[in-house]
Amino acid sequence: MSELLLNHLGGRWTAGTGAGTALFDPVLGDELVRVDATGLDLPAGFAFAREQGGAALRALGYRQRAEMLGAIVKLLQGHRDAYYEIATANSGTVKNDSAVDIDGAIYTLGTYAKLGAGLGAQLKNSRFLFDGEPAMLAKEGAFQSQHVQLPVRGLALFINAFNFPAWGLWEKAAPALLAGVPVVVKPATATAWLTQRMVRDVVDAGILPAGALSVVCGSSAGLLDALQPFDVLSFTGSADTAATIRRHAAVAERSVRVNIEADSINSALLLEGEAPGSAAFELLVKEVVREMTVKSGQKCTAIRRVFVPEAVYASAAEAIGARLAKTTVGNPRNDAVRMGALVSRAQLAAVQQGLQALKTQTEVLHDGATHALVDADPAVACCVGPTLLGARDADGAHRVHASEVFGPVATLVPYRSAAHALQLIRRGEGSLVASLYGSEDAALGRSALELADCHGRVHVINPAAAAVHSGHGNVMPQSVHGGPGRAGGGEELGGLRALDFYHRRAAVQAAPGVLEALAQAQA
Amino acid sequence: MSELLLNHLGGRWTAGTGAGTALFDPVLGDELVRVDATGLDLPAGFAFAREQGGAALRALGYRQRAEMLGAIVKLLQGHRDAYYEIATANSGTVKNDSAVDIDGAIYTLGTYAKLGAGLGAQLKNSRFLFDGEPAMLAKEGAFQSQHVQLPVRGLALFINAFNFPAWGLWEKAAPALLAGVPVVVKPATATAWLTQRMVRDVVDAGILPAGALSVVCGSSAGLLDALQPFDVLSFTGSADTAATIRRHAAVAERSVRVNIEADSINSALLLEGEAPGSAAFELLVKEVVREMTVKSGQKCTAIRRVFVPEAVYASAAEAIGARLAKTTVGNPRNDAVRMGALVSRAQLAAVQQGLQALKTQTEVLHDGATHALVDADPAVACCVGPTLLGARDADGAHRVHASEVFGPVATLVPYRSAAHALQLIRRGEGSLVASLYGSEDAALGRSALELADCHGRVHVINPAAAAVHSGHGNVMPQSVHGGPGRAGGGEELGGLRALDFYHRRAAVQAAPGVLEALAQAQA
Repeated sequence: MSELLLNHLGGRWTAGTGAGTALFDPVLGDELVRVDATGLDLPAGFAFAREQGGAALRALGYRQRAEMLGAIVKLLQGHRDAYYEIATANSGTVKNDSAVDIDGAIYTLGTYAKLGAGLGAQLKNSRFLFDGEPAMLAKEGAFQSQHVQLPVRGLALFINAFNFPAWGLWEKAAPALLAGVPVVVKPATATAWLTQRMVRDVVDAGILPAGALSVVCGSSAGLLDALQPFDVLSFTGSADTAATIRRHAAVAERSVRVNIEADSINSALLLEGEAPGSAAFELLVKEVVREMTVKSGQKCTAIRRVFVPEAVYASAAEAIGARLAKTTVGNPRNDAVRMGALVSRAQLAAVQQGLQALKTQTEVLHDGATHALVDADPAVACCVGPTLLGARDADGAHRVHASEVFGPVATLVPYRSAAHALQLIRRGEGSLVASLYGSEDAALGRSALELADCHGRVHVINPAAAAVHSGHGNVMPQSVHGGPGRAGGGEELGGLRALDFYHRRAAVQAAPGVLEALAQAQA
Repeated sequence: MSELLLNHLGGRWTAGTGAGTALFDPVLGDELVRVDATGLDLPAGFAFAREQGGAALRALGYRQRAEMLGAIVKLLQGHRDAYYEIATANSGTVKNDSAVDIDGAIYTLGTYAKLGAGLGAQLKNSRFLFDGEPAMLAKEGAFQSQHVQLPVRGLALFINAFNFPAWGLWEKAAPALLAGVPVVVKPATATAWLTQRMVRDVVDAGILPAGALSVVCGSSAGLLDALQPFDVLSFTGSADTAATIRRHAAVAERSVRVNIEADSINSALLLEGEAPGSAAFELLVKEVVREMTVKSGQKCTAIRRVFVPEAVYASAAEAIGARLAKTTVGNPRNDAVRMGALVSRAQLAAVQQGLQALKTQTEVLHDGATHALVDADPAVACCVGPTLLGARDADGAHRVHASEVFGPVATLVPYRSAAHALQLIRRGEGSLVASLYGSEDAALGRSALELADCHGRVHVINPAAAAVHSGHGNVMPQSVHGGPGRAGGGEELGGLRALDFYHRRAAVQAAPGVLEALAQAQA
């Protein structure tokens, strides 16, 4: 039997008492390690996190906690090779795709270390944040209202998705720890190994106080039951599970604050008037292909719908298809391979099923089935070539606007007018990101404002941005990440805005002498 | 049969097709009016609000919408006498208590008219808000992230509580309308009359575009079913109903953004070292009595637990009891009466039942049953005298920390040390407000910071604030209103912070030329 990964809870490493669930190599099919959370005393472990971990973190200031994030960055950098090995084995990703997860995690941590250092320099050793200027509640300021932000005195539980075992942990843990809130992470079982290893490295290095960082690998049973009113909960995953979480007593009855990132049918839009071969057209083609193939399309932010003017439909189909045809698919250990595997046979089946459903309302413009696998056995490997579909009936193909196929699949959609395009994009009912491609800044600005209310992010690629833009699908810690409606209604990152989720805002109403005492506590 | 109040939905006045539910005078027992929402086409009405009302509001800027709020203020001021008459008849409140609702509503609206005018002057005719400074995503600012806030393109549904038919509408509608979001209000049936009348006056005056303000009186059946992903929902009421709302598909599956204000066991704390007869002691006594008796204790923010040092327990009981004894209770039409009725026989029964439950763990320090009613028939009137209980076993009396009796009832609780007091207050598991009474500013500031994470507001009354403070229970629009945990986890008001709930934040990532185009759209 393979190694059983330990959980870290209550300040110690604990094995589950059950048989465990195996994790596999999605290319070779080998069993890698096992995880198990059976028999853990979750209420006691959570209490330890709140009482020991939380108190110890809160006793430090923002500056010191930012220094800890900096120390974690250095530690993780030192172990990069090991993380890449785990990613290759357990996620089946090529090196560039593993980097999106691993180096993306380290970059995000580093950004919060810097932001926290800036905040700490401003605040000295403060244990809380001022929020805005005081408002006057009586003449001559004799009574005032000063808002403050204090770290929540609970823990932050993360129930994470399989596609980002590294980044998914740290993009959430960085602001939580900076805020002074202890973290319990429950990675998705399929790829729990990398999350567990990173937590193990950080815990073993003694960078954080006991109870500040815990990991539970395996079933999520009982986790929500152990949540209390001042805890916060982040979930990334399917809309169905999100609904189950929202209905749980922890959220519905105990008002646990929850952040959800769920399904998202992200869009790319080529503005009107951009001819085939124009700079904007080429930028769209390049970005669509990149988004379809990076991590085999297993990104919440990947482009699923590509909107182009009717007149450009055929040219766009041809240009995107031609690039997709060059994508080599197979074993990520072979240097000739550009796109590795999906995460599991279950995901492979889900993608094929989703593709079948979309095909009933679309035509196939480039067929992923035509890609022979390199160095991989189709009977074993969870590999699939990229498929571009086309929805000539843009309005009638409702599945295109409503179902997220979590793999290397996108649909080209022709539109009649700018208004038609915006209306079709809105049929996604809330998405994480839309990207715009064009050459006229005013038109791009107008379209961005038209779409900003139903997206967490609008990414604009004009020729001036060609060489410097950060990528449609890359989540930058400086920008908010999340989207309304179908996308779950959550909001993460956005620089220091991320601290809000881990703080509670209160108004202190008092005479100036008392507010002066608060200001002294701040210094 | 009494008059049937009309609903306003889909831009027109509509009668329900059912028999209706009667509203009563809680002092005299008379039937006043009836409400009914049977047969309304809610999906069509909501669509009208979103598409007509929302579009018309969004086409205006913040400045123009602020002017509308100003016009509503003037209109409501002109009808004050009618509103007071309805309040007397339907809420059974004395004039001072009706003022908390009616003049509180007008003051809040006026505050948002002013805040909006300030914002509008800054923004000119902008249709959206910038959120922070741009963050650099490439060297020399070649690619940047600018956050913006746009009004949600949905409607705001308010499911309101019976105790504030006027303020409950306008404290929510003011920021919603200022943000450009159409409002549908479902007032609590028992006191729906005043809400309906105010909406009627505003609609008839033609101040707002069609579809901007709707009112549905009667059953809430079907309201949540008609919500769509970009709508927002505010609920004020019991924790039980809040849980039902959170489990509804609109919230759990469609990610409708929700703000909940639920149960709250608010605290007043006399700090250590304040002797009987001291200024702080007297301020506590005065505020506790005021909070217990204003609106017969039917305020979410009323003081329910009064914490005093053990040594002061007997003196505090005596001083509070002596003041309570002077409170005349009965028909609000009699000028000698200081405290009117509870809202209904059902509420009277609930208060008596809650009081019985608390009595099993407390002693009675002042018995409300000793108050003879003035000008009111105990067999008909929903009147009850104020009762002060005492929990000598502060730790053992768990009901005192967990159950909200929504009437003129509070419990005096002795504490052993400052740490003990803070720990007991936290057993409320999240409240709207705590007030602190003391003479040392540093100690008051420290205690405020200790309690701020589990309260939406900490109100500090020292001798300097005696004549100018805004009151423990008064919700000032400049301060946030809401509380974590048991209090529902919501947040309203807080000056312009209230706009956040009605906007969606997005990051626009672009080259400087596109961001410049956004800035021009702003001007």
